Amino acid sequence: MRVLGIDPGLRRTGWGVIEAHGNRLRHVADGVVRAPDGGGMAARLARLHAQLTEVIVAYAPDSAAVEETFVNTNGATTLKLGQARGVALLAPAIAGMPVAEYAANLVKKSVVGYGHADKTQIGAMIGVLLPGATMETSDAADALAVAICHAHHWQTSSQMRAVS
Amino acid sequence: MRVLGIDPGLRRTGWGVIEAHGNRLRHVADGVVRAPDGGGMAARLARLHAQLTEVIVAYAPDSAAVEETFVNTNGATTLKLGQARGVALLAPAIAGMPVAEYAANLVKKSVVGYGHADKTQIGAMIGVLLPGATMETSDAADALAVAICHAHHWQTSSQMRAVS
Repeated sequence: MRVLGIDPGLRRTGWGVIEAHGNRLRHVADGVVRAPDGGGMAARLARLHAQLTEVIVAYAPDSAAVEETFVNTNGATTLKLGQARGVALLAPAIAGMPVAEYAANLVKKSVVGYGHADKTQIGAMIGVLLPGATMETSDAADALAVAICHAHHWQTSSQMRAVS
Repeated sequence: MRVLGIDPGLRRTGWGVIEAHGNRLRHVADGVVRAPDGGGMAARLARLHAQLTEVIVAYAPDSAAVEETFVNTNGATTLKLGQARGVALLAPAIAGMPVAEYAANLVKKSVVGYGHADKTQIGAMIGVLLPGATMETSDAADALAVAICHAHHWQTSSQMRAVS
């Protein structure tokens, strides 16, 4: 199974593609999509959509996972982040992929075993789990982390199906 | 010029299409797009996107306008609204249309002459300005209001360009 993880943001959206074979994970690709400042909100969202669609076409994942976003106390910031997040959820849905959402603590727990790990610990653990990951920025690392979380939960639920 | 106005929401998104010829406005169509509860956020956003795209294909507007959203004090609600709004901004942008945003007070002022009109006053004034508008819900009325606002500002700026 090929999983696309997405960590959405208005300026930078991290993405990562992994493959899960049984309990083995393999890094396929990761990167960051950048939406240019200026040109209006709709144009920035259109650029984000186009770039995520390129990633989906290039790597043909079977499913996608997006981390549940931390809700900022600043309403205007939250609204903007929501707009980028809407586009990040939409692109794989348009491509016909199931899209899962996972809470941030569950994502961290899937990668490092507990829910309060910091970014350095997560990055180091992803380097161990997925040799070859470039993780240009922490956004790409976060995207790979949510992909790992999705692969883990998918494996668990399919093992439970196989047992029952 | 044909203008598509959109009033985005996660459950109900109002839309309205008008034509502006000089100072004359004409109602073309309006309606409400509904995203079903359940089925996951990504699936709801995909349905919203598909329905807005249908409206754009059916009425071929030249430009689009979206009202700037009131930022709720509830962060989770604001994030969800942002997701729907991102899709509402994206659909016309993907179709190659310029997308304008207008503050709520400016929209009200364009329709009824002052910025603190209530929904009943706006609805009544749209009925006068655009005979034939069905305005199934207040969401469709709000969408027609932002379309009127856009037509008005476009006329004004093109008259200024003609004079200068």
